[in-house]
Amino acid sequence: MRNIKIEIQYNGFNYCGWQQQPDSLGIQGTIEKAIYEITRENVKITGSGRTDAGVHALGQVANFNLMSSIPVDKIPNALNSKLPKDISVVKCEEVSSKFHSRYSAQGKRYRYLIHNSMYRTPIYKDISYHVKYELDFEKMCKESKKLIGTYDFKGFMSSGSSVKDTIRTIYDVSLTKEENLIVFEVEGNGFLYNMVRILVGTLVDIGRGRIKEDMFEIINAKSRSKCGHTAPAHGLFLKKVDY
Amino acid sequence: MRNIKIEIQYNGFNYCGWQQQPDSLGIQGTIEKAIYEITRENVKITGSGRTDAGVHALGQVANFNLMSSIPVDKIPNALNSKLPKDISVVKCEEVSSKFHSRYSAQGKRYRYLIHNSMYRTPIYKDISYHVKYELDFEKMCKESKKLIGTYDFKGFMSSGSSVKDTIRTIYDVSLTKEENLIVFEVEGNGFLYNMVRILVGTLVDIGRGRIKEDMFEIINAKSRSKCGHTAPAHGLFLKKVDY
Repeated sequence: MRNIKIEIQYNGFNYCGWQQQPDSLGIQGTIEKAIYEITRENVKITGSGRTDAGVHALGQVANFNLMSSIPVDKIPNALNSKLPKDISVVKCEEVSSKFHSRYSAQGKRYRYLIHNSMYRTPIYKDISYHVKYELDFEKMCKESKKLIGTYDFKGFMSSGSSVKDTIRTIYDVSLTKEENLIVFEVEGNGFLYNMVRILVGTLVDIGRGRIKEDMFEIINAKSRSKCGHTAPAHGLFLKKVDY
Repeated sequence: MRNIKIEIQYNGFNYCGWQQQPDSLGIQGTIEKAIYEITRENVKITGSGRTDAGVHALGQVANFNLMSSIPVDKIPNALNSKLPKDISVVKCEEVSSKFHSRYSAQGKRYRYLIHNSMYRTPIYKDISYHVKYELDFEKMCKESKKLIGTYDFKGFMSSGSSVKDTIRTIYDVSLTKEENLIVFEVEGNGFLYNMVRILVGTLVDIGRGRIKEDMFEIINAKSRSKCGHTAPAHGLFLKKVDY
């Protein structure tokens, strides 16, 4: 049995998320259906993690077992010919049987787009969070850098998660701005449920002066109520997964 | 009579361009209709220039005469409430009666997005030109810099234009790349019909080795056939107009 690793981009706008729901295939199921149409094999694909409804991916990774001898360099175009236009397979390789998209992952990088303007944007509307308030960008940059390190990020987790160990390491944070578009990127060894969206919401609340505490105080409080709001899903991109 | 200047962003994907066509209002007509709905005045708006079908804008400028005393700071939201989501008014000011969006313009800056990958992108599909061929980015950068200056750009004009003086000055060119996304920007005192799209097509043809001549030779030939193809409209953005 071959173990096939694929890298996928998607615009999550029209999906219930990575995982299947009663009334929708999800991105995972949509790809499984395309694999069936190409190979007539009913495979189960494993993603590096679930993405929520509306979240996008620039480099989601998944793997699956396959009997078919189709060459790996033919797989992306073959699958893309069956996939809807908002999902695209952009890489494919055969990997050792030990490779597991989720358990083998060493880290992830996310991107989040904020459109900071009094007025809506027609260009980035489906892929960015529209923040109308004036934001203190310099302050957001300064506070965002404090996120780098190993901390108990318990406060930055939505309820409903059964995760016990809430210590995570953030390796890198970047915040850049070009005109009205703010690009936040964060890389770490793992992220709690909704953690990136709460990090963004917290930075936005700091930028508009709603949160006065500094980032160390917020982290140390280990309380969801001390962090900012959960930024919406449609500004978030899973950018890459490291193995 | 007040002279009102507005700055507009739009996603041109669903439009026949700036100008009205027999079966479509165009962007101009859509904005005029919104102005009518707000003020009950039938105004004619003047754009800094027409954009073709599918071309986007981050900073198109237009002006119009208005009787209504509606404050300028109320105009963007008032119009946006009537406009479709792919058009947005992002600035508004009252200007002297001498101001004319087209004749007063001193220069323009355009942006063009190229998605350079073997596989399609779901994220940027409606706003970028998908180039599947491998491109020599360094060579494209080097050749693009030669565009800066005052030249007869006659070759970089589509037929059907009645323009006689084809000398234009390009002040600035930038070409950057982040992963698969190449961003080309060009600023000049004016552009011939389809000039930016032909500049991009020429750079792409240079990057893939289809054109061997250097940019000076191409400019000097003053012949459309020595330049590259016309890159598609949907990768092009009118970024700003200088006055």
